[in-house]
Amino acid sequence: MLVLGIDPGTANTGYGVVERRGGRLLAHDGGVISTAPRTAPERRLAAIHARVSELLDEHAVDCVALEDLYFGANARSAFAVGQARGVVMLAAGQRGIPCAAYTPQQVKGAVCGSGRAAKDQVQRMVQTLLALPAPPTPDHAADALAVAVCHANRAPLAASIGSAA
Amino acid sequence: MLVLGIDPGTANTGYGVVERRGGRLLAHDGGVISTAPRTAPERRLAAIHARVSELLDEHAVDCVALEDLYFGANARSAFAVGQARGVVMLAAGQRGIPCAAYTPQQVKGAVCGSGRAAKDQVQRMVQTLLALPAPPTPDHAADALAVAVCHANRAPLAASIGSAA
Repeated sequence: MLVLGIDPGTANTGYGVVERRGGRLLAHDGGVISTAPRTAPERRLAAIHARVSELLDEHAVDCVALEDLYFGANARSAFAVGQARGVVMLAAGQRGIPCAAYTPQQVKGAVCGSGRAAKDQVQRMVQTLLALPAPPTPDHAADALAVAVCHANRAPLAASIGSAA
Repeated sequence: MLVLGIDPGTANTGYGVVERRGGRLLAHDGGVISTAPRTAPERRLAAIHARVSELLDEHAVDCVALEDLYFGANARSAFAVGQARGVVMLAAGQRGIPCAAYTPQQVKGAVCGSGRAAKDQVQRMVQTLLALPAPPTPDHAADALAVAVCHANRAPLAASIGSAA
């Protein structure tokens, strides 16, 4: 099973491609899609959509895994993140690839065994689980790999975004 | 000047195409893009994006006008509306068409002369300004026509979404 994990944002969208082969997890790709603040929002969204579409055409992923809204988010930031998340989900929907959503607690729980794990603990566990030479950076790529790992490890239990929305 | 006004939502996205010709406003099109609740969100977003793309290919609009987040929105609904709004903005961005955002107060002020106008007052004024035989329905189409009218009447003063974000 091949999963594209995404940490969406207009300025920085993290991505990570993780394969579960037998009992092992392998990182195929990871990075950040950055867009310039002075660019019009609709063009920034177009750049994110184009790059995610490329990633989906490059890697034959079975699912796109995204973090759900975190508890305590304010409406303004939820609105902005929602826009970026929408174009990522669209790229999947246009290809018939399902999306799955996990709360930050589910991601931490799946990666560290505790929904309250600290950020650096998540990064170290992502490094360990994917046998990477160093903790993944930057943060957005690490978060995207973490949600991909979460889906790869939890897929049989996964709730679709539909049931969470 | 031709404007596509959009009232975005996953279940119902209202749209309205308004032309300003000389001092007059003309409605070219208007309606609602509805998606089924049982369809996966990524496919619902794909349906919205496809229909908005069609509208943009049909009508050579100069701008897509959207309502900004309303004050008091909760994070969960802002997240969902943001996703739908993102794929609408994307359709514009993919064609190099600029987007503009207006607060609900700006829309009401531009249409009714008061930022605190009631919903039915907005509908009646949209009917009057566009010389429609009846108040536009359903609500989402009326709201989309109102934001298009707002942009058509205010365009010289319009703030881009960029400056509002």
